[in-house]
Amino acid sequence: MRESDPNSRAKAGVMIQDPRSELTVDERRRYLEHALELADVCRAAIKEALASGIEVRLKSDGSLVTNADMRAERAFREAARSRLPDAGVLGEEFGEEKAAGALQWIVDPIDGTAEFAKSMPLYSTIIALRYKGMPVVGVIDQPALDLRCHAAFGLGAYQDGRRLHIEQTTKGTERIAVPSRVSFLRHGDDGRVFDEITRVTPDFRVFHTAYAHVCALIGAVDAAVEWRVRIWDLAATQLLIEEAGGVYRSIEEPEEQGGLPVYSAVFGKRRLVERLAEILSPPMSAQAAM
Amino acid sequence: MRESDPNSRAKAGVMIQDPRSELTVDERRRYLEHALELADVCRAAIKEALASGIEVRLKSDGSLVTNADMRAERAFREAARSRLPDAGVLGEEFGEEKAAGALQWIVDPIDGTAEFAKSMPLYSTIIALRYKGMPVVGVIDQPALDLRCHAAFGLGAYQDGRRLHIEQTTKGTERIAVPSRVSFLRHGDDGRVFDEITRVTPDFRVFHTAYAHVCALIGAVDAAVEWRVRIWDLAATQLLIEEAGGVYRSIEEPEEQGGLPVYSAVFGKRRLVERLAEILSPPMSAQAAM
Repeated sequence: MRESDPNSRAKAGVMIQDPRSELTVDERRRYLEHALELADVCRAAIKEALASGIEVRLKSDGSLVTNADMRAERAFREAARSRLPDAGVLGEEFGEEKAAGALQWIVDPIDGTAEFAKSMPLYSTIIALRYKGMPVVGVIDQPALDLRCHAAFGLGAYQDGRRLHIEQTTKGTERIAVPSRVSFLRHGDDGRVFDEITRVTPDFRVFHTAYAHVCALIGAVDAAVEWRVRIWDLAATQLLIEEAGGVYRSIEEPEEQGGLPVYSAVFGKRRLVERLAEILSPPMSAQAAM
Repeated sequence: MRESDPNSRAKAGVMIQDPRSELTVDERRRYLEHALELADVCRAAIKEALASGIEVRLKSDGSLVTNADMRAERAFREAARSRLPDAGVLGEEFGEEKAAGALQWIVDPIDGTAEFAKSMPLYSTIIALRYKGMPVVGVIDQPALDLRCHAAFGLGAYQDGRRLHIEQTTKGTERIAVPSRVSFLRHGDDGRVFDEITRVTPDFRVFHTAYAHVCALIGAVDAAVEWRVRIWDLAATQLLIEEAGGVYRSIEEPEEQGGLPVYSAVFGKRRLVERLAEILSPPMSAQAAM
């Protein structure tokens, strides 16, 4: 698995400058302000949809979508365009609008639609802004919990007003967040990866929303695992984790039926992340070699 | 596993009257009012403790306790005494005060202390009132989510103002809530029960708090499982589930090191509960026979 170095990438022995250092601190602060305003826009759209009644339907890929997802992503796109007209947008519900410049928004208006559709509170809005493909701003907003985590490149990670620092030591038993067995079965594993992970770390939680990522940020779990998800599910997480002093490892694989690639990731405290990455890597390598 | 019939118990062919039918509707309503006031009392105590700072320590059984747990249970006992002076109290933190009459409160001031200690919102206060050993009132209160479920015998189950009805059919894949592998390992199983459950229903969530019970009540999961927990963890759940039209099955086992018995339970939609009860029963029977 690749560990991203936020400051530089080595290539053929030459240190390549991280393109994000082309952005001034003021620019990054301004982008963060935009992202927080866009999170407010999504919250308002979700609230309006809740007030007018939620309709749930099944998408062609078997996942759920509601009128609130659509409404929030539409509102996001409109508000994003008025702020940064040249930025592209890639969203879960309406696909990709190409960028005229180097900036691209990534948005999942409601991550955890299954929770949301049942009036349960663990769903999130995920917002990220990338510059030349690298994350500059990341927000995970949880409207029903009134809890928001945000980060900007080089400026730290915060939960609301509080700066986040991931401690590297663990008190007591290690605890992780992991998807349930069905996520592994659906996406190219026979359950071996799930079994191995949960035997190494038998004290785990299963949320199936970015609430798991927030738990890793706040230290409620020591690490979290995702298995073959889309870019919008993880768009804000790498920057949040790294700006909080944690370690993020991921692998990108081509989608089997064409379309967008899928990502698996493990993130949190360094030593646990290294151990879990070893479990996740072999089947992914085998899969990639097929 | 035993299925409790809320209205009568058959014994040697004779129908025995449920003792709760000795209570008038007005009495049950009054007890429910008391329980809801006591939930407010616990909320206020938890809020005060949060404002003054949370201190966490390890109990002799390896579980966590905070000053908020203690403060909430003390406040509960004082307020309970002023309302029903003859009722006994059994609480997680301060044990049992014997009853002078037929009523007994059961309270877990903070269920999910591990979540609470990390400032995460899924913890609950669990309150039940029993009459001659049978549950008359049950409340699961989630202060951080501002979500409260309550039920009184014969008067229905509610989430805040909304009456709860557990639907018996499942749309799509069945989904359950289950404890993580560590809960089975700690309490007399080698992981076989966990593996079997999660192979039968691979789409599951793991919360480790009574949030799982609320999910079963609201239909966010189709059934929930608990494995060898204390009476206060399940005190409100049977009545809530049955008053919402669901099925509750449990088994009581003597504690191995003496002390209070432990309970395993499965509850939610009938057909899934029956299937899961079959998985849970054999090892429990074997254990009981040892």
